[in-house]
Amino acid sequence: MHTSIATVSLSGTLTEKLAAAARAGFGGVEIFENDLLACPLAPEEIRARCADLGLSIDLYQPMRDIEGVPDDVFARNLRRARHKFELMNRLGADTVLVCSSVSPDAVDDDARAAGQLARLADLAQESGVRVAYEALAWGRHVNTYEHAWRIVEAAGHPALGVCLDSFHILSRGCDPKGIEDIPGEKIFFLQLADAPLLAMDVLQWSRHYRCFPGQGGFDLAGLLRHVLAAGYEGPLSLEVFNDVFRQADAGPTAVDAHRSLLLLREAAGAAELPPPVVPTGVAFAELLTPDAEPVTALLAALGFTRAARHRGKPVDLWQRGEARVLVSTAAGARRDGTRLAAIGLESPDPAAAARRAEALLAPVLPRRRAPGDAPLEAVAAPDGTELFFCATGRPGLPDWRADFADLTDTPAGPATRTRIDHLALTQPWHHFDEAALFHRSVLGLTAHESVDLADPYGLMRSRAVTTADGSVRIALGVGAAPTDDTVHAAHIALATDDVVAAARAFRAAGGRLLPVPANYHDDLAARYDLPEAELDAYRDLGILYDRDPGGAFRHCYTETVGRVFFELVQRDPGYQGYGAANAPVRLAAQHAGRR
Amino acid sequence: MHTSIATVSLSGTLTEKLAAAARAGFGGVEIFENDLLACPLAPEEIRARCADLGLSIDLYQPMRDIEGVPDDVFARNLRRARHKFELMNRLGADTVLVCSSVSPDAVDDDARAAGQLARLADLAQESGVRVAYEALAWGRHVNTYEHAWRIVEAAGHPALGVCLDSFHILSRGCDPKGIEDIPGEKIFFLQLADAPLLAMDVLQWSRHYRCFPGQGGFDLAGLLRHVLAAGYEGPLSLEVFNDVFRQADAGPTAVDAHRSLLLLREAAGAAELPPPVVPTGVAFAELLTPDAEPVTALLAALGFTRAARHRGKPVDLWQRGEARVLVSTAAGARRDGTRLAAIGLESPDPAAAARRAEALLAPVLPRRRAPGDAPLEAVAAPDGTELFFCATGRPGLPDWRADFADLTDTPAGPATRTRIDHLALTQPWHHFDEAALFHRSVLGLTAHESVDLADPYGLMRSRAVTTADGSVRIALGVGAAPTDDTVHAAHIALATDDVVAAARAFRAAGGRLLPVPANYHDDLAARYDLPEAELDAYRDLGILYDRDPGGAFRHCYTETVGRVFFELVQRDPGYQGYGAANAPVRLAAQHAGRR
Repeated sequence: MHTSIATVSLSGTLTEKLAAAARAGFGGVEIFENDLLACPLAPEEIRARCADLGLSIDLYQPMRDIEGVPDDVFARNLRRARHKFELMNRLGADTVLVCSSVSPDAVDDDARAAGQLARLADLAQESGVRVAYEALAWGRHVNTYEHAWRIVEAAGHPALGVCLDSFHILSRGCDPKGIEDIPGEKIFFLQLADAPLLAMDVLQWSRHYRCFPGQGGFDLAGLLRHVLAAGYEGPLSLEVFNDVFRQADAGPTAVDAHRSLLLLREAAGAAELPPPVVPTGVAFAELLTPDAEPVTALLAALGFTRAARHRGKPVDLWQRGEARVLVSTAAGARRDGTRLAAIGLESPDPAAAARRAEALLAPVLPRRRAPGDAPLEAVAAPDGTELFFCATGRPGLPDWRADFADLTDTPAGPATRTRIDHLALTQPWHHFDEAALFHRSVLGLTAHESVDLADPYGLMRSRAVTTADGSVRIALGVGAAPTDDTVHAAHIALATDDVVAAARAFRAAGGRLLPVPANYHDDLAARYDLPEAELDAYRDLGILYDRDPGGAFRHCYTETVGRVFFELVQRDPGYQGYGAANAPVRLAAQHAGRR
Repeated sequence: MHTSIATVSLSGTLTEKLAAAARAGFGGVEIFENDLLACPLAPEEIRARCADLGLSIDLYQPMRDIEGVPDDVFARNLRRARHKFELMNRLGADTVLVCSSVSPDAVDDDARAAGQLARLADLAQESGVRVAYEALAWGRHVNTYEHAWRIVEAAGHPALGVCLDSFHILSRGCDPKGIEDIPGEKIFFLQLADAPLLAMDVLQWSRHYRCFPGQGGFDLAGLLRHVLAAGYEGPLSLEVFNDVFRQADAGPTAVDAHRSLLLLREAAGAAELPPPVVPTGVAFAELLTPDAEPVTALLAALGFTRAARHRGKPVDLWQRGEARVLVSTAAGARRDGTRLAAIGLESPDPAAAARRAEALLAPVLPRRRAPGDAPLEAVAAPDGTELFFCATGRPGLPDWRADFADLTDTPAGPATRTRIDHLALTQPWHHFDEAALFHRSVLGLTAHESVDLADPYGLMRSRAVTTADGSVRIALGVGAAPTDDTVHAAHIALATDDVVAAARAFRAAGGRLLPVPANYHDDLAARYDLPEAELDAYRDLGILYDRDPGGAFRHCYTETVGRVFFELVQRDPGYQGYGAANAPVRLAAQHAGRR
């Protein structure tokens, strides 16, 4: 099926948008009029540019306030249309979008609207183009697709059809089932946009908050099924007005957009993608650092031991129980300082997991980083984090540890119960919604509600993506402003059976815990009836406490090295969260530590 | 009257917030619980810090989900309250805010709620504190101030009163007149917040979009009059949850906040401020530049002549007709490059204008920049632009031109009709609403609707502030992202009677006009029935065209020097706008020119 995107959905100049759309794999574009007006290229040059890029121009849009008007106004409108049809011929665009009128001149008279649209279609036909009439959700008299179709049907003109736009239909709560009553060949165009379910003015909602399919709350797959059932065979085209996308680099936005359409087709049963392979655990986290010393000191204090060294690269494997951390001093570390660069996910079928990621436009990383390395399936997440699909000690699958020499068993005992509870990653500000959709659709994780976290210098947001059993938990975080992605660090949370013991051991080994103000623990005493000794230990160690209907969560933080810190957590089995209620205190303490 | 601000309204740590509030002139604060919990200072130390700063702690807030609950839950709530009352004693806060319950445990039983609040008030009284009960707009059972008052009245306890919050009252469309039925001494506290009139979920609206009085759409002066009529004598306190203020420097935000309260009191007839002195024209615009050559070449091409030179400083006066531009190469220019640094406003009473500005917390600039200079009343606007209140050739008032030597008359003739049509200033992203309030309240200008302008790389906003007759027009602009204030330049728009002639003369004199794509003019031809010759001239010169019910607007732009460019405009007398419809084309062309 042909995919398309309206140029208004992407940031930049028209030529930047076209290049980004083509690179992301779209087959065509809708040319948004203002993008054309601001472009120094002549229409013929734009046409040639699109052809070079392999893009068809599927729609020219929009024409507004055409129909249902007094005759003298309509005469002026026809004059305007004649100019636009000539332009479309120069551009090589054969379909124009006409939005239902919002003009105060428009009268509530379907026969007049139909008659005028038929005359417009006559003119279009003479120019070899056709008219797709769309009901805006806030159209003055015509604001439902059923009404637009009644008018198109009454006009009965071969060059006149409807354009369906999922936002205009679903934002009004209209039932899309009636789409099946429209003959497929009279649906000239389909525009797709999702949106978060906000209770707000529909015009503002439409102009600022639309998003790509799967990133909002609409049932777009359901709508698409009805459109396909009607016999529609035209492009699936995205038209998304979004303040964030307007600012973001067009390249990644276009990839995000195209991925969302691939997923929508899958959800509607209209496309076959390799099925998701849900990971079953975290094999390792990899830290990239220009200077291993501070990181390894921290790991040692956390009870990790150096278990192995990579045969060909400056990468050490540190291990405690089931928690494994790779420390790499490879090239590239110097630029960004110490950071969480890669995650190994235990995968039941690494190759299949990589196939799905590749089909969903994730950049595939070289399978072998050096000659002689064991093959590793890996892709890049939208934030640049490398995701390795791996097997640890599973017969019949290559073990990623085969590249490491001197693998020793770590000491037995209670310490070995340590595992990675969750990983927290800071996302690029303009791509937070993309990140959630990526982890959900590519990795088969479940995305949970987004929560606000009050940092002293602005509201952050955080959204968890997890497996059903919690074996993989990733918290995607984003700062308050586009520039914040360098401020907030990523972290690795280690699950322990006894956070008090773990924190004491860490401190005894020379580790530094994040200090927490006494006022916080006074408040804990007010809110919860905790034993005095327990509270004293929490005060002493800077342990935070939260509770939900499923149980309690106790957690504390290490100092930060570069852009990474660790968290020690003790999670009751039924507790679902990540201690979000404590985030303001933790974030303030981390700011204070940076002074 | 005592003014106060909730610490949640400001960005930063608790101590940063306290310092900013004190510097801005607040008499007290509400301590927001999360700010205290995250603060490493003990409550006694916070109390001492506030005392040092001259701040009273007027409220501790909030306590939630206290009342109308089963007995066992209430017993736990009392235990929590006891802790908080002890904390308040340490802090020296005598009033606590209790928000109406949102808990699913709460039952719809006023008698139970009143009884439990009375018991809470007993406990409060024992601790020497009192309870202010507030109806949240989304309270589970209690969500109007009338209902909260009925419960407080039924409880009949001296340590229990109501807290009124303008947002919770006005967001629900409640009539504030009934406030006068509450005895003034039972109104324990008044929280004030404005908000833009958004049709959206009230909880989201409250938590993210509140703003300072005068920056939104609520009639806060009307509400305040009712509260004062009831006999309330407590603090006027701001409680504003706003995503932007959370990120902005606390210092300027606190000044903005305090100014808004001063204005609110004036609007409610509760305070005397020096009255506004509305300017009657633009005396000059001053450009600060490290290198006068490119700027003066541009001015010369625009038909300006160097009319005078300052006696003591490197400042030249350039003039064309009534348009005057000062070009300064004084210190400070090197850092920021060429920029619009100051505006001279014709003022009927410069000293009185400065008195109002000073009373409204505008920093007053030295009256004489050098010994021997004529005295000049000047203040700094929130964006740092220096505003001079001046008189040009008016008997009995010092003329700012007295400091300039060799003042010559400029040539007579049609060119002398030139004047400054408007000035466009780029505002710091976090202080856009402040800027509009400042210009409206300090200068007595009228603020018009904010409009979105689609820059290729994000949505900008622009809001005009003007005198009624258009003699002063300032367009306040803001970029799409906090970092954009260095991207967008300021500009000076020169009014001409014939923009085609002015543009031709400029080009003939060697000036470079901003090129406009042919596609734009093709569209003009489609939309308007303009004479071919006129359209040809527009194409040739890059002239843009707009029309509103009052008339037409023709405009074109010069190249940009540093962070300043000029616009030539021909405005029909009835046209009200600034060519916003053409902004996307202009902005795209300016981006293209920077490549």
